[in-house]
Amino acid sequence: MGFFSKDIQTMDDLFVHTLRDIYYAEKRILKALPEMIEKASDPTLKAGFRQHLQETEQHVLRVEEVFRMHGAEAKTVTCPAIDGIISETEEISGEIADTEVLDAALAAAAQAVEHYEITRYGTLIAWARQLGRTDCAGVLQRNLDEEKATDAKLTKLAESKLNMRAAS
Amino acid sequence: MGFFSKDIQTMDDLFVHTLRDIYYAEKRILKALPEMIEKASDPTLKAGFRQHLQETEQHVLRVEEVFRMHGAEAKTVTCPAIDGIISETEEISGEIADTEVLDAALAAAAQAVEHYEITRYGTLIAWARQLGRTDCAGVLQRNLDEEKATDAKLTKLAESKLNMRAAS
Repeated sequence: MGFFSKDIQTMDDLFVHTLRDIYYAEKRILKALPEMIEKASDPTLKAGFRQHLQETEQHVLRVEEVFRMHGAEAKTVTCPAIDGIISETEEISGEIADTEVLDAALAAAAQAVEHYEITRYGTLIAWARQLGRTDCAGVLQRNLDEEKATDAKLTKLAESKLNMRAAS
Repeated sequence: MGFFSKDIQTMDDLFVHTLRDIYYAEKRILKALPEMIEKASDPTLKAGFRQHLQETEQHVLRVEEVFRMHGAEAKTVTCPAIDGIISETEEISGEIADTEVLDAALAAAAQAVEHYEITRYGTLIAWARQLGRTDCAGVLQRNLDEEKATDAKLTKLAESKLNMRAAS
């Protein structure tokens, strides 16, 4: 999208632009997860990241389905937000030697990723409904539900195990 | 923090690092809000951003209070996540001419900012408790409660008014 043109004219344009933003984000997360799986030591955290990798593959497919349903071309727009969130994750991982402290940091980093997706899907669903596309909203809702479930699982794992081990 | 050194040794180091991350983020948001206030057209959205600017000033002071309580130097570490989220906000604002579509985009952008803060404060509170610093957790909880309230208000405003106007 051009920085100096006014490419977004309508709510529909805004919806498609934001769909392209989350499409970029999901693909970026897909690339970041294998490294997070490798860096995690706790078996439950590792398994959780593995499961989320499989879910993320489905999320990409569902976003593509929404593009098709809406008759818009499935393409990405660079999303500096997810780039920043992931670059912060990579940066902090490189600064931690202790595996238990690293696990606590990785879980928190993954939650920052989830929260970005939660806010974007929440917005996209509201906009889809406003545009009369409850069919698109329904597909996006499935992604949102899985992101929220992942976030809740990470909170539980961090508070019941990871943080305690990291602090010991 | 150095990219190739292992500066974070303990959970306490991780807590202080993340406190410096949110300290940077709050200060960055403080700089971004005046432009968002200026760009917003809807009076309720404008007033909401103004109120959040005042709250953010308090959040910065509370984070400084936690630094003091914890005996750590109040300094920032660059937070690429908030830089990315805010740069995305500025970018999309520049692409929208219609004031009602812009209001819907600004509300969504502000919610992305809130969600970043919600995840970071949630993590910081859990870590503070794990470290036996319920006093620090209490102060951070006040910031978290206000971020969550702002997010909820934005959802309500978007769904009850802004999105409808943007789509009309």
